[in-house]
Amino acid sequence: MSEGKLMAKRKYKICIVGFGTVGGGFAEQLANKREELQQRYALKPEVVAIADTHLGSIYVPEGIDIPKAVELAKQGEENILEDKYDAPMKGWNSVKTIKEAEADIVVEATWTNLVTGEPGLTHIKTALKQGKHVITSNKGPCAVAYEEVKRLAEENEVYMRFEATVLAGTPAISFIRENLAGCEIEHIRGIVNGTTNYILTRMERKGWSFAKALKKAQELGYAEEDPSADIDGLDAAGKAAILSRVVFGGDISPQEVKRTGIREINKEDIKAAKKEGKRIKLIAKVDKDGGKVKASVKPEKISKKQVLAQVMGTTNALLIRTDHLGQVIVSGPGAGKEETGQALLNDLLTIHRYRTKGRNIYA
Amino acid sequence: MSEGKLMAKRKYKICIVGFGTVGGGFAEQLANKREELQQRYALKPEVVAIADTHLGSIYVPEGIDIPKAVELAKQGEENILEDKYDAPMKGWNSVKTIKEAEADIVVEATWTNLVTGEPGLTHIKTALKQGKHVITSNKGPCAVAYEEVKRLAEENEVYMRFEATVLAGTPAISFIRENLAGCEIEHIRGIVNGTTNYILTRMERKGWSFAKALKKAQELGYAEEDPSADIDGLDAAGKAAILSRVVFGGDISPQEVKRTGIREINKEDIKAAKKEGKRIKLIAKVDKDGGKVKASVKPEKISKKQVLAQVMGTTNALLIRTDHLGQVIVSGPGAGKEETGQALLNDLLTIHRYRTKGRNIYA
Repeated sequence: MSEGKLMAKRKYKICIVGFGTVGGGFAEQLANKREELQQRYALKPEVVAIADTHLGSIYVPEGIDIPKAVELAKQGEENILEDKYDAPMKGWNSVKTIKEAEADIVVEATWTNLVTGEPGLTHIKTALKQGKHVITSNKGPCAVAYEEVKRLAEENEVYMRFEATVLAGTPAISFIRENLAGCEIEHIRGIVNGTTNYILTRMERKGWSFAKALKKAQELGYAEEDPSADIDGLDAAGKAAILSRVVFGGDISPQEVKRTGIREINKEDIKAAKKEGKRIKLIAKVDKDGGKVKASVKPEKISKKQVLAQVMGTTNALLIRTDHLGQVIVSGPGAGKEETGQALLNDLLTIHRYRTKGRNIYA
Repeated sequence: MSEGKLMAKRKYKICIVGFGTVGGGFAEQLANKREELQQRYALKPEVVAIADTHLGSIYVPEGIDIPKAVELAKQGEENILEDKYDAPMKGWNSVKTIKEAEADIVVEATWTNLVTGEPGLTHIKTALKQGKHVITSNKGPCAVAYEEVKRLAEENEVYMRFEATVLAGTPAISFIRENLAGCEIEHIRGIVNGTTNYILTRMERKGWSFAKALKKAQELGYAEEDPSADIDGLDAAGKAAILSRVVFGGDISPQEVKRTGIREINKEDIKAAKKEGKRIKLIAKVDKDGGKVKASVKPEKISKKQVLAQVMGTTNALLIRTDHLGQVIVSGPGAGKEETGQALLNDLLTIHRYRTKGRNIYA
């Protein structure tokens, strides 16, 4: 491919919807790695629009000064982007921004709703219908309406990527769909929630009560003030629903995932397991049994020798059983600002790679 | 993308050079998964030519009957393909086959030579110069001349994929280059040779001598009659050289990798390590230290709590340290007919995916 053709393809205009920890963190990575992205991947991304319900919306066709926008976002006042950033267009709502800001790619990084998928679902559908590629960290739309979103992406001939939704930047979705393509996936078992794994690890290692371990997790920012989404297994159920849809073509919503959390696990349970040479882990499981896709999340007492028993702290892991390879494991962090930003960045690079035909740009 | 455009792209004519366990195994997978490849991936591969120094060469423009060719290959007589398969063209040598058989993709699956890279290197260069994509399981060409081969692929605007060369079908090369793109890779440590890991595991678990464990590995087909390439660490050094070139842009040949094998490890070493709560593992290490790329293979005594210490038997693993994600681990089988065939099949699907623009074909 001639340099000219490559050049023509390397500029991407990006619209970020949701400029919190994830959206802002991704933007920071784009800014920090600007030179490397250009030199190594021939990629020149430009953030042209930001829409955030709290910080306000700006649209700058020539490109937003990211460090400046991030700095303002950190101050965090209501509407600060609109008030303090000198943008030619501002005050548009998210949907108007997605529709009217001239962008190639919409990065959807708003909050997760595992029941309705909103507002992410509307944002994503709007973007796809406009022929814009979508990259998202939002579990909701994929967990409740993956097939609809996928169909829209296909109809509009654009990419829809969501690596961040399972295991953050640790390769999971693309690992299974792309790296293991050619294999039959037989089942997936995994630790997909770092908060609960941290709590269980602390209870075992330090002999702490559930309440004490949870408090520590909250202090460290691993658990929310209302920790129920993590400790009741709903976050894990969302990820199990995504995997069941993407890998096995299931139609299981997060509410339909058979689910038990870790709220009832006490010191004595942990000790009793330890005596048997076992550990309690919150295991998400997805498989297809006689044509029926099944997904569950529940604490399991597993031998310390098992791979998943050896995954400690906030680390996540997926154990994938396949026909050609038997058991394959991928493990790494499953949350965090930089880790989630990496997933979005990798999705961007993947779209770029798919669009840069006939050249081994990463070799 | 319209069905018509997709249809036009899904047919690939394949030339297989080297029809032993790996090349033949790959062909079998294509035959066994014919329907699935077509339905799921819209891929219709057709093997049109086979060239093997031992079995002979055939070229059938309309496509070779794979089960028949595999059956003949299993009988194994000299020149059996030429003698018993009714092909319109036969008796061509490998280079002539690569040059003149009309194919889109050349699968190079001949034997590994870690000093010269031949005959694979010549095969690959010939194919790339003809504008044919290359998929290879051959460590030699990548370990000694990666940059040359890469440049040729770029000049001719074709893909050159070699997932099979490190960890067989367990994602390694594409895991690092594609799934972790966007990260800075800081270092890689891994268990990349299943034979030595099997021997060390047996020595520890059963208290066997090195000689006894090696003999068992040979009986099971994990080690060759002349086991030196495995036990002296040369196979691992070849993989370390590939990783050092591909990931860090190094220029290290397998001979230049600092290397110690496991031949000198005895029962007492293993026992002594065990007493300290440690295990001996043959660790390949690749990193960049002050601008200088370094690669080594040597037995290390590591704590049982370390991830790599928990990798047992013939299983392989890579532990990759990155900026955005900290430590990420991938683990699975590192050898075997089906496992290596899977790597070649996945490379084929990747090329197909790159060439099928604008459609999320794996979603």
